[in-house]
Amino acid sequence: MNEMIKKQLNHTTIRSFKDKKLSNEEFKTLMNVAQRTATANGMQQSSIIRVVDPKIKQAIAEVSKQEYVALVPELLVFIVDLYRNNQISIEKGFESDNANDMDKFFAAYTDACISVQNVVNAAEAMDLGCVYLGSILNDSEKICEILNLPKLTFPVVGLGIGYPNQSPQIKPRMSMDLRVFENTYEIKDNYLNDIKDYDIELQTYYDLRDANRRVDSFSDQVVSRMKTPSIKRRKMLESIKKQGFDV
Amino acid sequence: MNEMIKKQLNHTTIRSFKDKKLSNEEFKTLMNVAQRTATANGMQQSSIIRVVDPKIKQAIAEVSKQEYVALVPELLVFIVDLYRNNQISIEKGFESDNANDMDKFFAAYTDACISVQNVVNAAEAMDLGCVYLGSILNDSEKICEILNLPKLTFPVVGLGIGYPNQSPQIKPRMSMDLRVFENTYEIKDNYLNDIKDYDIELQTYYDLRDANRRVDSFSDQVVSRMKTPSIKRRKMLESIKKQGFDV
Repeated sequence: MNEMIKKQLNHTTIRSFKDKKLSNEEFKTLMNVAQRTATANGMQQSSIIRVVDPKIKQAIAEVSKQEYVALVPELLVFIVDLYRNNQISIEKGFESDNANDMDKFFAAYTDACISVQNVVNAAEAMDLGCVYLGSILNDSEKICEILNLPKLTFPVVGLGIGYPNQSPQIKPRMSMDLRVFENTYEIKDNYLNDIKDYDIELQTYYDLRDANRRVDSFSDQVVSRMKTPSIKRRKMLESIKKQGFDV
Repeated sequence: MNEMIKKQLNHTTIRSFKDKKLSNEEFKTLMNVAQRTATANGMQQSSIIRVVDPKIKQAIAEVSKQEYVALVPELLVFIVDLYRNNQISIEKGFESDNANDMDKFFAAYTDACISVQNVVNAAEAMDLGCVYLGSILNDSEKICEILNLPKLTFPVVGLGIGYPNQSPQIKPRMSMDLRVFENTYEIKDNYLNDIKDYDIELQTYYDLRDANRRVDSFSDQVVSRMKTPSIKRRKMLESIKKQGFDV
């Protein structure tokens, strides 16, 4: 099998890194890959904040509620960036009243997401390890403040990159038979039966992050997530609005 | 340089495909890669609709306003899927009143996007070509109807895959110096000067899709996008609300 696909099939999240920075060349390669990522209508409406200041890293770690975030060798925050093109349009003499449309927001959000995964694949191809930090959205308003994000920009996801200092077990996932449908969505009402084996598999999976901690079954995790909403996270649309978007 | 990264740096969109289907094994590999993609909190809240019915393909091509969509050998639509986990929770006896939170929506939206890029990287590693179809969101409500998407699901992006029947030129992109910032966002107000060379470069770039068509400069394209909003697209949040989300 193709080397790349082997790596993709063996993907695990890395949260512990060697105390070694990426070389300038490695970083540049990752940014070149980000540049070449597909982008809606060629508009290139996402950007990257490279966080090197330890104080800012620490502030992001606090939002993420993950101490290791302050220690990742390379910390990137991918953002929606409609500021740039709106500014270009203004400089060309046209001030648009729909620069802040939510459809533009979503196109840029998609751009940011697919570029981060492209960077992850490049990093893993170079034997680097990565951790996605969806947790920056615990408090998107705070992240906007920390990174000084102007109107028409918004944080999407963080990414930590470095040389792996661990090799975690691959975490079991549910069968794609439950996630791939032909032609139209198939509404099911007996998932508990379908995920019975997966529930057992995940229950006996020990995360190397914490070797002695037994994780819940998948369905128990689902229920526990449903029971504990994050209040700040629920304010995400308000925060998007504060950044100038027409929600 | 690493073979994978070479492919990533040479990424182009493929819109013309050979009349040859993917083998079952190829398709299965792509789905295995989708399965292994990182997912927020392990929740796996995205799904894939594999469209094989020519009538449904045609309907999607009409929403996309791109005829070639009806002809792509493999047509996938990646969706936000909170239906499944909500159903699991209900089956476990817990009916949550925050299953439709927008923060869950965004986490699932991100999951869908990063899994599509992971599939693109796998496909390109296998020498297949891909085309992103952001254009399905021209009318997201119609797509929900065509694909029979239940409450708590939403279309994110389409993907066409097949054996390339063209080798387009690589499309120029703006310098990453304009898209990567250190520590905090750098507000600029003289982009026209910064993108001067890029404007010229793109203006002289001929798209192989239509060899004799000269494309506009980047800044002209930006202005023209700002001037022509799509009314249906502007209704995206309404459409998300119709699918049951708490916008």
